[in-house]
Amino acid sequence: MDCGEGVQFQSLRFGLNIQKLDYIFVSHLHGDHVFGLIGLISTLSMWDRRKKLKIYSPHGLKKTIDAQLDYNKAPLNYELDFVELDTTESHKIIDNDHFEVVTVPLEHGIACMGYVVKEKPRPRNLIKEYLHEGMKISHIRTLKRGEDVVDHVGKVIYKNEDFTLPESPIYSYAYLSDTKYLETVVPIIEGVSVLYHEATFLEEHRSRADTTYHSTVMDAAMIAKLAKVDKLIIGHFSSRYESLEKFIEEGERNFEAIELAFDGKKIVLRAQ
Amino acid sequence: MDCGEGVQFQSLRFGLNIQKLDYIFVSHLHGDHVFGLIGLISTLSMWDRRKKLKIYSPHGLKKTIDAQLDYNKAPLNYELDFVELDTTESHKIIDNDHFEVVTVPLEHGIACMGYVVKEKPRPRNLIKEYLHEGMKISHIRTLKRGEDVVDHVGKVIYKNEDFTLPESPIYSYAYLSDTKYLETVVPIIEGVSVLYHEATFLEEHRSRADTTYHSTVMDAAMIAKLAKVDKLIIGHFSSRYESLEKFIEEGERNFEAIELAFDGKKIVLRAQ
Repeated sequence: MDCGEGVQFQSLRFGLNIQKLDYIFVSHLHGDHVFGLIGLISTLSMWDRRKKLKIYSPHGLKKTIDAQLDYNKAPLNYELDFVELDTTESHKIIDNDHFEVVTVPLEHGIACMGYVVKEKPRPRNLIKEYLHEGMKISHIRTLKRGEDVVDHVGKVIYKNEDFTLPESPIYSYAYLSDTKYLETVVPIIEGVSVLYHEATFLEEHRSRADTTYHSTVMDAAMIAKLAKVDKLIIGHFSSRYESLEKFIEEGERNFEAIELAFDGKKIVLRAQ
Repeated sequence: MDCGEGVQFQSLRFGLNIQKLDYIFVSHLHGDHVFGLIGLISTLSMWDRRKKLKIYSPHGLKKTIDAQLDYNKAPLNYELDFVELDTTESHKIIDNDHFEVVTVPLEHGIACMGYVVKEKPRPRNLIKEYLHEGMKISHIRTLKRGEDVVDHVGKVIYKNEDFTLPESPIYSYAYLSDTKYLETVVPIIEGVSVLYHEATFLEEHRSRADTTYHSTVMDAAMIAKLAKVDKLIIGHFSSRYESLEKFIEEGERNFEAIELAFDGKKIVLRAQ
């Protein structure tokens, strides 16, 4: 999500394999969110990527990336698929067996959107030792769907909870950067496991937040509270602040489960 | 000279004040030489630069930078002055009281040029204690030009060497990246104090150097020898080499005063 300058070096530094990328989600076209994209795209080609890369963004990104690729002459080894969206409405842009992605209209004085990624319910994990040779494949499929196996008169033959592990929780992540305080996001991000919300300013600079379409940390924390999220990560701090302690202090007034973002921060939702 | 991705962060890291930049010299439009330019340009504006920035490059750079500035909407606080040059001939592009800059045609399979920066002779430094009240301003000026002061019949009144310090040497720097082995550069860079020359490959990959329009370290060292430079700095090593020792070993066969470039390397020509 977003590609500030140096994203390829940071990925390397933190052990992320950029060749595994399938999608890039761009929130808006300010330089600190896109200037690293062209370098990332070029490096992937140099490393002989072949699979398509899909890039979601507000309108205008394709034109500027194409202009930069044009003069480089060497064509990319793989296909770029740009999907440019109207940012004034929420769209479900991905919906597959594993997860869905929904956009979140934001207000930042320029076309801007956030993204929510939400896991799909996973098939139940079977307890293999309990299965036996008399069971049919249709029985196994029914159990994996979370249902009991019944005979033709509706009598339960195999009770689901006897053969499967408890369902694992469904995780979700919302990324909201950059935006002024905006309550219309609440129903779209409601109940997510982790919310990243920008928090550029402290309360003392509220008027600056208003004129630049940014949020204070109390704004971010209020959104987290209204949306009943599990955890709030704040970032995008103005460089005027030498210490970030006050961000936690002010944020906690509205929402307790708040943490500072920093380069390389890792949040584990489900242990592998 | 050149602006790879992250140039603004590296400048900060190594204590260079990017606000002091007057000129940027771009060798060619491959991504590893220009992808950091848009970020640098934008940051300078955000930091409220007002003075013009002049950018020399082969044709095509202005178009791609403009395309990126366009979608950002906020206009820059200062003027960009693009000078796009034919790279097949050498041009004297700057010639002021302090230094001159000359371009060097290179061959890299894409329009490409190097740059030579050469100091102008500096006024002689007077030994102030030796000056006396009877001397005229015209005498002082004559001495600073390095001439003796003579009377109307041509008799020497003040001998230059009695009143001035020895002339300081004139330093020069040539930057050649990227290029195949090219002897036509020799007369243009002859005798420079420091030559940076790309050395992407070792001799074992000479055929790869040929097809990609790059140099081996022995190529670079041969150019340094033919041009009788004081010192050769090599860089742009292919990432296939795990150790760089062999670069020095092979380069020394053609030229002794050879050093490896690395991030943050500093070469002092004249102590301040």
